[in-house]
Amino acid sequence: MNRETYEMTLLFDYYGDLLTDKQKELFDLHYNEDLSLSEIAEHLGISRQGVRDGVMRSEDILKEIEQKLGFVKRHMGLKEVLDGLVSDINQIKELNTNYEIHSLLDDLRIKIENLD
Amino acid sequence: MNRETYEMTLLFDYYGDLLTDKQKELFDLHYNEDLSLSEIAEHLGISRQGVRDGVMRSEDILKEIEQKLGFVKRHMGLKEVLDGLVSDINQIKELNTNYEIHSLLDDLRIKIENLD
Repeated sequence: MNRETYEMTLLFDYYGDLLTDKQKELFDLHYNEDLSLSEIAEHLGISRQGVRDGVMRSEDILKEIEQKLGFVKRHMGLKEVLDGLVSDINQIKELNTNYEIHSLLDDLRIKIENLD
Repeated sequence: MNRETYEMTLLFDYYGDLLTDKQKELFDLHYNEDLSLSEIAEHLGISRQGVRDGVMRSEDILKEIEQKLGFVKRHMGLKEVLDGLVSDINQIKELNTNYEIHSLLDDLRIKIENLD
């Protein structure tokens, strides 16, 4: 998957529910099912240009929403911080010799890893 | 601040940038500046009914976006889990006798408290 496709599917995961059902369908067939514009056009009985316009419109909407809300960017930032916390916990584990604390640190790490 | 006002200002914080400038202005004057519909109407030189319709429309839009995206609900859930992590760290601190670990646990706790 190239970078742009990855970014678009990410935006769709976050904000796809703000698209209309038709926009969602076109986007899903193109990006998630990896069908070409022509294949989608044939499948849905509409013109290739219509499919192309619909997909591009959805891309624009999703990008604009992220520009306004920024939840994808914020979430990526959160993930980085969480990775840092896991490193911190591993550092503490190396210093620690108490068995009970070792086990509690593991629980803590697992909770943080599952936070995403 | 009553519960509904709190919920609306929260939704506005999250999704307000998806409203039009006019909707944002009405919403802000009513909920954040706490002006009455009549006061806003006079201030902007439009009818009270116009203000009321605009505010209600914005409320509906914000509620609908949350229903579709659910980021407010998700964020509240995250905050609860983070509070739990802080409790876990305090529990570990009580068991711990190592000074260096104590200090690292404090750093970890502060990072989690600032995560929000």
